[in-house]
Amino acid sequence: MSEPDQMYRSGGFEKKQPPDLVHLSAAEALELGERSMRRLGYDVEASRIVAENLVDTALCGYASAGLPRILNIADNPKHRQPRTAIRVVHETDTSALIDGGNNVGLYSVHRATGIAVEKARRSGFALVGVYNSFYSGRNAYYLEMIAKRDLVGIHLASGHLQVVPYGGIRPALGTNPIGFGMPSSRGPVILDMGTAAIMGADVILKTRLNELLPEGVAVDGEGEVTRDPRKAREGGILTFGGHKGYGLSFCVQALGILAGAALNRDKDYGFLFIVFDPAMIVPVEHFKNELTALINRIKATPRKPGVPEILIPGERAFRERERRRVEGIELDRLVFEKLNAL
Amino acid sequence: MSEPDQMYRSGGFEKKQPPDLVHLSAAEALELGERSMRRLGYDVEASRIVAENLVDTALCGYASAGLPRILNIADNPKHRQPRTAIRVVHETDTSALIDGGNNVGLYSVHRATGIAVEKARRSGFALVGVYNSFYSGRNAYYLEMIAKRDLVGIHLASGHLQVVPYGGIRPALGTNPIGFGMPSSRGPVILDMGTAAIMGADVILKTRLNELLPEGVAVDGEGEVTRDPRKAREGGILTFGGHKGYGLSFCVQALGILAGAALNRDKDYGFLFIVFDPAMIVPVEHFKNELTALINRIKATPRKPGVPEILIPGERAFRERERRRVEGIELDRLVFEKLNAL
Repeated sequence: MSEPDQMYRSGGFEKKQPPDLVHLSAAEALELGERSMRRLGYDVEASRIVAENLVDTALCGYASAGLPRILNIADNPKHRQPRTAIRVVHETDTSALIDGGNNVGLYSVHRATGIAVEKARRSGFALVGVYNSFYSGRNAYYLEMIAKRDLVGIHLASGHLQVVPYGGIRPALGTNPIGFGMPSSRGPVILDMGTAAIMGADVILKTRLNELLPEGVAVDGEGEVTRDPRKAREGGILTFGGHKGYGLSFCVQALGILAGAALNRDKDYGFLFIVFDPAMIVPVEHFKNELTALINRIKATPRKPGVPEILIPGERAFRERERRRVEGIELDRLVFEKLNAL
Repeated sequence: MSEPDQMYRSGGFEKKQPPDLVHLSAAEALELGERSMRRLGYDVEASRIVAENLVDTALCGYASAGLPRILNIADNPKHRQPRTAIRVVHETDTSALIDGGNNVGLYSVHRATGIAVEKARRSGFALVGVYNSFYSGRNAYYLEMIAKRDLVGIHLASGHLQVVPYGGIRPALGTNPIGFGMPSSRGPVILDMGTAAIMGADVILKTRLNELLPEGVAVDGEGEVTRDPRKAREGGILTFGGHKGYGLSFCVQALGILAGAALNRDKDYGFLFIVFDPAMIVPVEHFKNELTALINRIKATPRKPGVPEILIPGERAFRERERRRVEGIELDRLVFEKLNAL
């Protein structure tokens, strides 16, 4: 079974109807997440880091990418291989190359973010890469850590091959997300987007549910556009936005090499951070205030009938989080029980 | 008349049929370009820099963005305003903010590229912005300069508002290109793409030719998708790739602020370079060789029937250039005469 299968298939819990849900406060979810990660053999610090990330993801509205992911980590073949301590293998005042030691990316990429932030705060700039790791979760989490320290961050992550290059009919690229984080005087602005037309997890889910894919997101083994998720798995996922999305996906895959991707046996997984202090070029307050002015200008743009508001990248997730911090989150009972049984 | 009108409308020469063409060698085109820029009041050095850029653009296959652009520069309202010397207004070992002095971007952004390359070669990293300038031409040109020096470059350029935000019906963003340049052992790999679904120049051209726009690239004044270029000018151009393209376009506009865009009266034009030495994190030869290995892997991917080859970003332009360096370029006779009459 290929890795993303392992990553997302476990359970079959993601779309049961009607779902049997357990309600948890954020604190309860955090405690459950921490305890579960410790059962997987991670230490207290790592378990806390991973749980905080996953609970934040759930609070932001991505339920299936929250605590259920701990079961996916448990099922991942890499989890059954030995882990070593996360290690900086090359370092300068403004750069670091990190061997993730086969730890889950939720832990190693968090560490990398901290290193990038410290270097960029001290020296104005940081280039930090992580290899030998897997599954870092929602990139917006790391970009928000960066933006909250009044830094600008660009994050690229190359991964497992499931996307076809433009004109191709077999996978040669990952879903290759790219993200930007920056500070404004009204808070962080975060873009976190895959360069694929659909997430790999969604194709697998549609297969299981016997549902059609959206139009134009995948090709079959002969290169014909298909809505059949089974046929899509004989070909591959398309990039979003045609040849432009392909160009972006290619560049993310290429820059994954800087993060050490080629040092992995599979040559695919690389997590790269480019972080800098806006003060290197304009005063930070100028940047933050003018970014807010830009946001206000965009929000004041006349809208299509039926569009209540023009959203800024990251805004929807932050609002969801505000609400759920009070209301708590819901977890599928099957996941809840499986986590408790780890 | 708005600025892009001035930029692209001059002449009406871009699609005459059958065209009356003048054939020029690259050297002849360079000489004509230099002479024309000197007539516009630019000095010998600036004229040479601009002409080299425009001739390279023509060699790469973008005929109307070559020497014809000198007539657009002449027509641009900014050209009739005073120019001052390009000036570094803030500088560190790894950064520079540059006042373009209302010089054409083809000159000021070239200068900025040189500064970014020197700083990144010396210090590993450079963040360089340019404001108070206009029209920098083909971004791939600058990214190639960077990649040829074994550096990685990211270039973002925010500009004149002609693109609607996602859900909006009036322009609030520029066409906001983003580009990547990186070295491989088989030469530079360059991505240079706008985040708009169509170039502003194309909408104006279609208006003039009474032709329909492609599907799904613009909205009318009420927010309905339209193929009528006149109606599109009452609404605006869409971003490519839906909300993801909007997210990217937003980030380019936002990072234009770092390049000093908000210091312009119009707050729109900013040209930003993020340049770094791959050796900060992995050996340069490792990066260049592994990037070539990635290229080879992608080129070896099985293809759709009828697709002769999977192309790498920048590859088509470089091949066109090889051919035209021998064959020379063709210039519309009307443009040729107008340039000679400047």
